[in-house]
Amino acid sequence: MTFKRKHLIGLEDVTRDEIESILNTAEAFKSVFDRKVKKVPSLRGRTVINLFFENSTRTRTSFELAAKRLSADVINFSVSTSSVSKGETLIDTARTIEALESDMIVVRHSCSGVPLLLSQVLRSSIINAGDGMHEHPTQGLLDLLTIREKKKKIEGLKVVIVGDIAHSRVARSNIYGLTKMGAKVHLAAPPTLLPKDINKLDVTVHNDLKRAVKDADVVYMLRIQLERQKRSLFPTIREYSMLYGMDEGMLKYAKPDAIVMHPGPMNRGVEISSEVADSEKSVINDQVTNGIAARMAVLFLLAGGEANEIATYGG
Amino acid sequence: MTFKRKHLIGLEDVTRDEIESILNTAEAFKSVFDRKVKKVPSLRGRTVINLFFENSTRTRTSFELAAKRLSADVINFSVSTSSVSKGETLIDTARTIEALESDMIVVRHSCSGVPLLLSQVLRSSIINAGDGMHEHPTQGLLDLLTIREKKKKIEGLKVVIVGDIAHSRVARSNIYGLTKMGAKVHLAAPPTLLPKDINKLDVTVHNDLKRAVKDADVVYMLRIQLERQKRSLFPTIREYSMLYGMDEGMLKYAKPDAIVMHPGPMNRGVEISSEVADSEKSVINDQVTNGIAARMAVLFLLAGGEANEIATYGG
Amino acid sequence: MTFKRKHLIGLEDVTRDEIESILNTAEAFKSVFDRKVKKVPSLRGRTVINLFFENSTRTRTSFELAAKRLSADVINFSVSTSSVSKGETLIDTARTIEALESDMIVVRHSCSGVPLLLSQVLRSSIINAGDGMHEHPTQGLLDLLTIREKKKKIEGLKVVIVGDIAHSRVARSNIYGLTKMGAKVHLAAPPTLLPKDINKLDVTVHNDLKRAVKDADVVYMLRIQLERQKRSLFPTIREYSMLYGMDEGMLKYAKPDAIVMHPGPMNRGVEISSEVADSEKSVINDQVTNGIAARMAVLFLLAGGEANEIATYGG
Repeated sequence: MTFKRKHLIGLEDVTRDEIESILNTAEAFKSVFDRKVKKVPSLRGRTVINLFFENSTRTRTSFELAAKRLSADVINFSVSTSSVSKGETLIDTARTIEALESDMIVVRHSCSGVPLLLSQVLRSSIINAGDGMHEHPTQGLLDLLTIREKKKKIEGLKVVIVGDIAHSRVARSNIYGLTKMGAKVHLAAPPTLLPKDINKLDVTVHNDLKRAVKDADVVYMLRIQLERQKRSLFPTIREYSMLYGMDEGMLKYAKPDAIVMHPGPMNRGVEISSEVADSEKSVINDQVTNGIAARMAVLFLLAGGEANEIATYGG
Repeated sequence: MTFKRKHLIGLEDVTRDEIESILNTAEAFKSVFDRKVKKVPSLRGRTVINLFFENSTRTRTSFELAAKRLSADVINFSVSTSSVSKGETLIDTARTIEALESDMIVVRHSCSGVPLLLSQVLRSSIINAGDGMHEHPTQGLLDLLTIREKKKKIEGLKVVIVGDIAHSRVARSNIYGLTKMGAKVHLAAPPTLLPKDINKLDVTVHNDLKRAVKDADVVYMLRIQLERQKRSLFPTIREYSMLYGMDEGMLKYAKPDAIVMHPGPMNRGVEISSEVADSEKSVINDQVTNGIAARMAVLFLLAGGEANEIATYGG
Repeated sequence: MTFKRKHLIGLEDVTRDEIESILNTAEAFKSVFDRKVKKVPSLRGRTVINLFFENSTRTRTSFELAAKRLSADVINFSVSTSSVSKGETLIDTARTIEALESDMIVVRHSCSGVPLLLSQVLRSSIINAGDGMHEHPTQGLLDLLTIREKKKKIEGLKVVIVGDIAHSRVARSNIYGLTKMGAKVHLAAPPTLLPKDINKLDVTVHNDLKRAVKDADVVYMLRIQLERQKRSLFPTIREYSMLYGMDEGMLKYAKPDAIVMHPGPMNRGVEISSEVADSEKSVINDQVTNGIAARMAVLFLLAGGEANEIATYGG
């Protein structure tokens, strides 16, 4: 199959075949990581611009490394310090960046819909690196890659996502990706942290964590934003942790070979106990490593790369 | 002609022949942008340091891309976060940077004269990326490149520059460059925003925008710094916009094939209307693209590159 | 001799042979600086991460250039803007960075012991770029390189270090390095700025600057942190400068061919007079240049490079 997509805005509008292409390509790139020279020449002479309207050292670094390992030139364009503060409009900033002859623009913005908007007005490939509470598709892809790697399949698995679903673009991208790949998605959250359109999604909702975790293959803990408490969305950190935190006792309800995931950074002792975070079941660091591979695959395929090209790169 | 210059401090002391060399070289580099691999090996192993005492994401990014496309190593040295805040003198900071074995230093500073001073005490090539209200020569060059590209010549054109001439290094570099290339430069501004030494420049001054724009080939709108109003240099934004803003009605006084330029970032609805900014006549995004080509040409020629070398780079 | 070390935490636990290997390798790299192409392919495809929990444009830039000249990919990970501010633990941040498949991590932190801790929990090579008041080993190495270059030997030289020894990781690394290489180290400082464990070090302590400087081969001035005065560690800047500042009169007590060093940034007129800083005896800019060579040597050797490999790189 040839990958025809130009932009990656969300997993909602990506097909199962496309997801599989990305995961297969990412897997091929992972073999590159074991070599001394962790680079391939695929995007030599192309320009990738990281256009971050929100600070995110982790995600930006992951995209930067992915682009460098494909031999692209990468420019970090952090907008907090730039012309937006001088009153320039979003579209003018984006057009300026495109006029720098970028090939691909990686966008993060606190408003949902900005990457889609940019894909409509610019010629460059747009990759959503997180937009408001909408989607974070490369996070969803790296999570799918990690699950497939650890469980050898995604189809039919019970995946429970726990925490602040309502405000989480990570949860949203995972729900779209997982259901497309045939997983059974269960959510556990206090009612105040569930999205209003929850019944449009193909998921099972639980208020009781124990029931949600029961026989799960994958336990996915979301980061709790401590500032939500001030807005009365949950009572206290302590109570949240008691009801929706993952510790060893609670994890026993999952399957014996269950894996535990978290998008980072963790609040140890809040949504996840240190014992769980550091246990054999935790694949949290694998997620980070897979983030580079998944992003390499996305950049490579959107740039028109052919999956069988990777095999030809020597060690 | 071989280019002998080591520094680029301003267009005031550059000859017409030198400007033409730079424009011809920039044009040759532009053909590189159409290729998949947007790079040439000219400056491989050389070190370019972006020494920015003033924040400027746009200009810094443009120089960074230009240097990378010449295969140089680029280091961004932003001085707000560095030793200057620890009480180090400007010259000590500059000597430290030179001791890093830089080949070329791109300098931006809020004080006029800093790049000249550095060129006198350092061994590296110094490129002025904007100093106080003095000059911004690579902006002047990219503007000349854009005009020549669109109008096929510069000689004899009527170019009107509108706005805050007094505080604008962009205006100053353009005035020097345009008059050297044989254009007839007209200025339109409120008297408070005209420089005191205006009669030393080879320009025609207008207070009435209509008369200035009449039969112009090029209409160059400067960004208005909104904070100037507080210093009583003009009455209100609304009045400034009425008298010196460019909208479709005013633009009709220019030649039918006139082009509209702006150095960015724009204040839409203040110095330029959205209709004009987005019209066919606007070449504002071309200016940004040409910025990279012009800066590549400057870096290449100051480093001793020969213009005929570029043609030998394969696709 | 083959270099077997994986981490560089401090000069306290490095042998004289190892220091000599590093200095010889650095010297070999210095010859690369005279070439147009200031690069060697030694670390192509390896990833070096600059993990800076404290701001330091100079040291970070020096490591960045060193890594680039070895053809490594470098990522700057500044932690002030990242997840640590979101409540993530140090170890979690470090594990995340390692999960990015880094080969070498250059760490600066305001707490002593952080690089050692990271070397115990991570698989990557750890290089200490300054930790609290503990050590700054690459500064020590670049200083040794500079002394050996200028005086043709280190053994038997009288080196006097002047200033705030107690709070200086630079002083500490120099003391370890210099005594290992056979220099006689003298310290001059007010008693309040001497470390408590001073008698464990193989040094001679003076309160009188004149006596300390007498017949010195090397005069090493430390930067005075002006904020220490507020904590009553010394009376006034003026008095400090009178008693412990280096001017031409004081420098006459040293040997006629003595050299003057300073780690930068200098407080001119406080710990060092402008005449001394700008004199023929000052090797302060050589220290900066040697910083790149010393750091190239450290990165190269920790990555398993063989010293004789460098000679094979063509011009």
